[in-house]
Amino acid sequence: MDISDLPRSKWDGTPLLSAPEAIAKRRAIRKFDPDRPIPDGLLKQILGLATLAPSSYNTQPFRFLVVRSQKNRERLRACAYGQPKVGEAPVVIVVLGYHYPHKTHLPAIVDQSVRLGTMTKEIGASVVGMASAFLERVTNRDEWATRSTMPAAATLMIAAESLGVSSAPMEGFEPTKIRQEFGVPDDHAICALIALGFAREEPEFPGRLPLSAVCFEEHFGQPWTLGEP
Amino acid sequence: MDISDLPRSKWDGTPLLSAPEAIAKRRAIRKFDPDRPIPDGLLKQILGLATLAPSSYNTQPFRFLVVRSQKNRERLRACAYGQPKVGEAPVVIVVLGYHYPHKTHLPAIVDQSVRLGTMTKEIGASVVGMASAFLERVTNRDEWATRSTMPAAATLMIAAESLGVSSAPMEGFEPTKIRQEFGVPDDHAICALIALGFAREEPEFPGRLPLSAVCFEEHFGQPWTLGEP
Repeated sequence: MDISDLPRSKWDGTPLLSAPEAIAKRRAIRKFDPDRPIPDGLLKQILGLATLAPSSYNTQPFRFLVVRSQKNRERLRACAYGQPKVGEAPVVIVVLGYHYPHKTHLPAIVDQSVRLGTMTKEIGASVVGMASAFLERVTNRDEWATRSTMPAAATLMIAAESLGVSSAPMEGFEPTKIRQEFGVPDDHAICALIALGFAREEPEFPGRLPLSAVCFEEHFGQPWTLGEP
Repeated sequence: MDISDLPRSKWDGTPLLSAPEAIAKRRAIRKFDPDRPIPDGLLKQILGLATLAPSSYNTQPFRFLVVRSQKNRERLRACAYGQPKVGEAPVVIVVLGYHYPHKTHLPAIVDQSVRLGTMTKEIGASVVGMASAFLERVTNRDEWATRSTMPAAATLMIAAESLGVSSAPMEGFEPTKIRQEFGVPDDHAICALIALGFAREEPEFPGRLPLSAVCFEEHFGQPWTLGEP
């Protein structure tokens, strides 16, 4: 996406949420309004923002299989233990992590950076070499693709919330069935499903562990001393 | 964190970035100002927001090992192929994914939800059962923990950017060395390093592939038709 053309308000003209608000107000929604579709332009904003997530050497291994037709959402629902929200939300995204972006997309990615002036042609050539060497050494390609794709999934949900669209990430699905039904090849990890739409509920915040339970200071196991008990 | 107490401005009083701005303006920084530390309260805001990322059954497997002392950042740098930014940035976070939150933390997590009124005691008990059964069936625990932790890593960087703090995610490090040096046990995946601080450079946007290259419509391989070539 063209980052000089960021959304300046929600689709309905009301103010965008700040990043902390969007992060804090996002809840995993169970009930979506099936009669309220996401306008094409709004979906495009959300996906465009998701692509701005970081990835190693800007290889962008994230892929978004956008399922919108009722028929296909019902097929997807059958691959996701029948979860009602897959049939109800107007958009469900199958988030995929591609194993080999350095083999197929890196030259185009680097050419773009050279065109935008962020690197010279010579540096671009050396980046292609370094990135390819680094990514060739990856031993677990499914894990690498997943690790490199989930930041885009999180970015997508924060962007959606900021723009007034609710979401629900899901890991309850059968990858083999999705591969069969939607033609996803083995060189793409199936990382998550994300339902998008307008909520028909307002779930409360379920809480989080205190920082003292999830942070360590300087060494694993050493308690966090930054002012929280 | 207490979500009724979100930051309303950056640490210096200037306006927070909207989520789209924070997502778009974040760049992977190479040069940090080594003489400008991150105030404790600001670091706490960033980490608190990171914990608001979603995870399955709210199990919160993300752990943040916060390395701030010069000596330890130099030790960490030696585990990260000598990357200068690890020594230069005032804070480097080793992002970990814990394999077994359902075994050790789920009852406390559900108790908190019950206290906050988001579920009854009875539903809480059934959630503990369902979540434990689901998470026990996970076959690749390192991949699960990584997949469930990277959304928090992305949330952390977006929150930081919105609050005026720059970041750099890194996957160039030697996990075995980090385990030895910082006591990280094998039941925690080492997902990423994230340097945090104030940038001494303003890198330009290196570009992204168009949506047509990363989105499919309804079926894998079927081209995206939402208005972009």
